[in-house]
Amino acid sequence: MPKISSKGRSMPESPIRKLVPYSDVAKKKGRKVYHLNIGQPDIETPEAAMNVLKNTDIKVVEYSHSAGILSYRKKLVEYYKRCNIDINENEIIVTNGGSEGIIFAFMVCMDPGDEIIIPEPFYANYNGFANEAGVVVKPIVSTIDNGFALPPIDEFEKLITPKTKAIMICNPNNPTGYLYSKAELESLKEIVKKHDLYLMSDEVYREFCYDGNEHFSAMNLEGIEENVILLDSVSKRYSACGVRIGCFISKNKEIMATAMKFAQARLSPPTFGQILSEAAIDTPQSYFDKVILEYVSRRNVVVEAINKMPGCFCPKPKGAFYAVARLPIDNADKFCQWLLEDFQYNNETVMLAPATGFYSTKGKGSDEVRISYVLKVEDLKASMKCLEEAIKVYPGRTN
Amino acid sequence: MPKISSKGRSMPESPIRKLVPYSDVAKKKGRKVYHLNIGQPDIETPEAAMNVLKNTDIKVVEYSHSAGILSYRKKLVEYYKRCNIDINENEIIVTNGGSEGIIFAFMVCMDPGDEIIIPEPFYANYNGFANEAGVVVKPIVSTIDNGFALPPIDEFEKLITPKTKAIMICNPNNPTGYLYSKAELESLKEIVKKHDLYLMSDEVYREFCYDGNEHFSAMNLEGIEENVILLDSVSKRYSACGVRIGCFISKNKEIMATAMKFAQARLSPPTFGQILSEAAIDTPQSYFDKVILEYVSRRNVVVEAINKMPGCFCPKPKGAFYAVARLPIDNADKFCQWLLEDFQYNNETVMLAPATGFYSTKGKGSDEVRISYVLKVEDLKASMKCLEEAIKVYPGRTN
Repeated sequence: MPKISSKGRSMPESPIRKLVPYSDVAKKKGRKVYHLNIGQPDIETPEAAMNVLKNTDIKVVEYSHSAGILSYRKKLVEYYKRCNIDINENEIIVTNGGSEGIIFAFMVCMDPGDEIIIPEPFYANYNGFANEAGVVVKPIVSTIDNGFALPPIDEFEKLITPKTKAIMICNPNNPTGYLYSKAELESLKEIVKKHDLYLMSDEVYREFCYDGNEHFSAMNLEGIEENVILLDSVSKRYSACGVRIGCFISKNKEIMATAMKFAQARLSPPTFGQILSEAAIDTPQSYFDKVILEYVSRRNVVVEAINKMPGCFCPKPKGAFYAVARLPIDNADKFCQWLLEDFQYNNETVMLAPATGFYSTKGKGSDEVRISYVLKVEDLKASMKCLEEAIKVYPGRTN
Repeated sequence: MPKISSKGRSMPESPIRKLVPYSDVAKKKGRKVYHLNIGQPDIETPEAAMNVLKNTDIKVVEYSHSAGILSYRKKLVEYYKRCNIDINENEIIVTNGGSEGIIFAFMVCMDPGDEIIIPEPFYANYNGFANEAGVVVKPIVSTIDNGFALPPIDEFEKLITPKTKAIMICNPNNPTGYLYSKAELESLKEIVKKHDLYLMSDEVYREFCYDGNEHFSAMNLEGIEENVILLDSVSKRYSACGVRIGCFISKNKEIMATAMKFAQARLSPPTFGQILSEAAIDTPQSYFDKVILEYVSRRNVVVEAINKMPGCFCPKPKGAFYAVARLPIDNADKFCQWLLEDFQYNNETVMLAPATGFYSTKGKGSDEVRISYVLKVEDLKASMKCLEEAIKVYPGRTN
């Protein structure tokens, strides 16, 4: 039997998936598990968009244009205009989820061995995409003490080498929920300009900004229009993760022409997902208002509960639907596994994501967990009660 | 503005796409263009499967399992059993079209710099996927003189180096329509075994075998079960190219475990496509019988017409819906462009794919074109008349 290549073998495993077998253990013991470990919202997909899909009258499900159905791209132009992002339909390539857009960005802009700087903790699958493209992620630590604000620009400067080609941010951030300010983006602009880097901005949580804060897109940084790549997805926006529709956006014609070659090689993005996503752009603001209100309630339940637990700290995120909390624990991976294997409160337990999986620097995040507040308030209250009781009795408690 | 990496720049362009601007020229001149250049069938997607999709009652379009919806994978097991391929649901990963399965296979089994042997002419996008994975395609010429049969095994032997990790075939073949025999596959087995290589078998045209010939799958080669990766897609089978559903199959547990890491990084394949594809497995044999009958008529029209044209030769393919023809022309790329820019017969012309794009060896295929017989018989007859008249007056005619 031939050997698997070392590159294939070195593909990192998703940190969230590692816990799945232990979750099965908890379920076998008859325990209810509250899943706060994944970014799968329970919000309904807009019904009107579902109906458009159901009433479609397609006889032959053909390949679509490799850049995506033209009418969808034109509709996306309208959507982005509403978001104050001025682009045209030729500056958009529709992708197989946000994931494919990130792979395209890495492969188009970087050679194997090139470096990309990403503030950590960051979305764990960036590691996988970097592995596929052969590029090296240089993490730059952000800290829970200031709610995971952008690290000082000096720290970025220190990491820059001749191999550095790009900086990547996720805004609002997964896993921290941090919303980067306009001032922070302006400071990124300066370093991008100075070193002529690409700025890749993952803005899939754009709609999820709370407490009156507005989202500022990297696309609106004046003077680096040719350097910015916007990565987007409809998964969270319309609670439609399964449609697998994202997009890759840039005003840089050379980038777009090269990305199109990658898009053409894989022929086209999925037709039905595009139809639903096109219809979803007409989703009324009232849908989002309701969703945002719901997430704010959920966030408040989680953040307030954790900050009341002795020795625990959870900054209040301004965006997305994640929070990272610091707990008085020896090892987040062990703790999360223990929650599933050994703990129960009223025959219930909670599944969290150890923050270690979101850091590239070894040892970082070992007393932190990511909580996705994607459950109803009532379930979140029960989950927080579980967590509170768990911390009290966890054998690896540190204070 | 930062430079695009050389890897991105070196991504090959699809040979078929290159002609699109010239097709637009023909259309602007008011000419009808018969599209025999692409593999987009005009056959209707099975209505029953479309209806299942339309009647689905999903409230939240969630991520599916990264390997694909379990009920779909179980249904695929039934489908493969009918094809005499014995696998279980854990030996299948559902992919974003056949394309993603090929990328997974390349990345899982090979390191950058490793080599894969592929008989040419071959599906042009293999070049793109090889570029993404950093692997080197070593072509081995098959010839139109024997209808593009498998090249002698000696020729494979000559190409094997310490870097050789795999052999890939497409069976029935795109672009040649050649159907590899059981004996040819058995001979491949010997070399795969001898050098402990992977055998990647792209069998997306499995249903399209003509004249009473049966398909023999690489999955049924005894003794190399751990070496074979089957790549498949529903695009052509159910004329559902836009659903973007394929699969990656292997009995090798290490391969599957590694491929799952790639599948998990991109979260999941598209939900709606999976629903349609699951329902499509119940498509009655009568649908295929009708489709096959239609393709046989179409093939016969094309092959007979070309073989009657002086100086032209087209072997009669036993599978898929492509044929490669040798024409008395100086340069297939020029000829195909000329057909669109300068030629018309009754204000009609034909768009063909120059075979050069399907060869890796420079200069090969310069007097060959690929014809996709995906149009109705009547249109194919008109197309062949166009081609016949075109060859008569083409300025670069060679005999």
